[in-house]
Amino acid sequence: MSAPGTPGAAGPPEEPGTPGAAVFAGVDLGGTKIQTAVLQGEKVIASARELTPQSGVAGDVIDAIVKTLQSALHEASLSDEQLTGVGIGTPGEIDAEAGVVSLAANVPGFGGRVELGPLVSKQLHGVKVTVDNDVRVGVLGELRRGAGRPFGNLLGVWVGTGVGGGLVLDGALRNGRGAAGEFGHMVVKPGGRRCGCAKRGCVEAYAGRARMELRARKLVKRGQKTDLFGIMKRRERDHLSSGVFAHALEHGDEMAEKLIEKAAWALGTSLASAQNLLDLEAIIVGGGLGDRLGQPFAERIVGYMRPHLFVAEHPPVVLCTELRDLSGAVGAAVLAGG
Amino acid sequence: MSAPGTPGAAGPPEEPGTPGAAVFAGVDLGGTKIQTAVLQGEKVIASARELTPQSGVAGDVIDAIVKTLQSALHEASLSDEQLTGVGIGTPGEIDAEAGVVSLAANVPGFGGRVELGPLVSKQLHGVKVTVDNDVRVGVLGELRRGAGRPFGNLLGVWVGTGVGGGLVLDGALRNGRGAAGEFGHMVVKPGGRRCGCAKRGCVEAYAGRARMELRARKLVKRGQKTDLFGIMKRRERDHLSSGVFAHALEHGDEMAEKLIEKAAWALGTSLASAQNLLDLEAIIVGGGLGDRLGQPFAERIVGYMRPHLFVAEHPPVVLCTELRDLSGAVGAAVLAGG
Repeated sequence: MSAPGTPGAAGPPEEPGTPGAAVFAGVDLGGTKIQTAVLQGEKVIASARELTPQSGVAGDVIDAIVKTLQSALHEASLSDEQLTGVGIGTPGEIDAEAGVVSLAANVPGFGGRVELGPLVSKQLHGVKVTVDNDVRVGVLGELRRGAGRPFGNLLGVWVGTGVGGGLVLDGALRNGRGAAGEFGHMVVKPGGRRCGCAKRGCVEAYAGRARMELRARKLVKRGQKTDLFGIMKRRERDHLSSGVFAHALEHGDEMAEKLIEKAAWALGTSLASAQNLLDLEAIIVGGGLGDRLGQPFAERIVGYMRPHLFVAEHPPVVLCTELRDLSGAVGAAVLAGG
Repeated sequence: MSAPGTPGAAGPPEEPGTPGAAVFAGVDLGGTKIQTAVLQGEKVIASARELTPQSGVAGDVIDAIVKTLQSALHEASLSDEQLTGVGIGTPGEIDAEAGVVSLAANVPGFGGRVELGPLVSKQLHGVKVTVDNDVRVGVLGELRRGAGRPFGNLLGVWVGTGVGGGLVLDGALRNGRGAAGEFGHMVVKPGGRRCGCAKRGCVEAYAGRARMELRARKLVKRGQKTDLFGIMKRRERDHLSSGVFAHALEHGDEMAEKLIEKAAWALGTSLASAQNLLDLEAIIVGGGLGDRLGQPFAERIVGYMRPHLFVAEHPPVVLCTELRDLSGAVGAAVLAGG
């Protein structure tokens, strides 16, 4: 169940917790929404969602995180004091030791340095708060509680505003020297489209929603027709959300079709490169756009990956997420120890 | 020192072994030469090299391997009985358990199935013989006894007839499900040049010596000038060897320059993709062409890698091999336990 007045979570239904097991909560902090989940043992016993405050004040976002946690706990008939730990997945650069986030430009008020962990902890009786990258946390959720459970070696590809990745080998998320998993910045077309990272030809330049929107605006300027921006306005959005793309695709919008096809091409081609290097068991496609477009999108990606596989007779399994938009919140709770 | 009448090995000078330490030998089996090394403790105490018999009879190759091992042992004033183990690095598909090699098309007589391990063991008083892939074994040599020693996370890129790879994470070579490390089949240009694997746009299609030769022949047919094939004939070679490319480069041959530049582009661009995914500490460039062209080639590769690095301020170290053409033989001895 979700908190009253907030949009319902699309994840699996909540179940009764394991009596006596420790309670952990997870928070998926995004630029538009804050999603929380409360876990007892292996079970998700409650979840809640709030829109991310757009005031530009970090304190407002912190308050909203705490409120969303409290409403999920309330539903589960639990109090703050019964929480063993809280995990938070967030965009930006993370100092996990200090629980500090920097440069999370998409979250209003988080453009600078925010002591996210300590500030949330302070409002929750000093409970331990652990902070990590939103994509890593989402992949962790799927690995331990979702589609990734049967596998020890997989790549999670999170397709949203940008394209993120989480590489799991021998059951553990790889860190490298702190920057492993940047699948979105594999080079799919040397000299190709400009990416948000200012380089050319990255996967994200073709498959990240922000760059796809830029491309659509350019094509419209050149006189091409699309209903993408019409749908955006009718839905009162200020950007081409995953829902806008999905709606346009369902209605046969030609530009949306071409953009999504190109995204699948970029993702599939680079997944083949990653697969040839790593020989993984599975690939999990998640993130806002990945979750929204689901299995048909995963199949398009496979169509572009398959012709480039070096060991064609032994391809990786390509799956959608199982927890859907709860991947991040559940993963954050797992990160905290849940 | 090398056996009389064979070309000298370019590796480090042999040193006296650790007295009393176990003796291991390694064999690097190639289509043109067989290189062995004898290790006592951490030291290479002897090495020998023979040309690979071209009769097409597998037994002749087995005999030559044994002979090369015996001449290295003889130099070290050791007998067969003092060997604790032998390792062999070979092209082809390997059944490590059984010591069997299949489809090593480049080695005369090895196109089918050869019981390499058992056949060599039989001629050496039943000593234990361990067999693995030539590139993996070369990377292992550099990791444990060469340029890779300071690093736990690296990618070995072996540039020769084809392009192979060996991925090391946390100090161990990754296997995946048996096919990890195929760096040569990362896709650098979707829809690009045809590769030896029949797919398009692989790194090997641009940076493998065999495909570079095919390209050179095509350009000559189109009327372009080069001294590559003249050098080949004067050196009495039947293919464009690494030495032929090196000589042509030194003499300012324009086609050789363009081919090597394109190879560096393919290697550098794909290394950036691998780096963005894995955040490695080091990259080691080896193999016949890599060893022959050395540091200037590594620097060309870095020039193409750098502009695509996601974390530009923290690039991987890019190194040439330290053991040069002994990487494989030393790695094979390490594989055997040395």
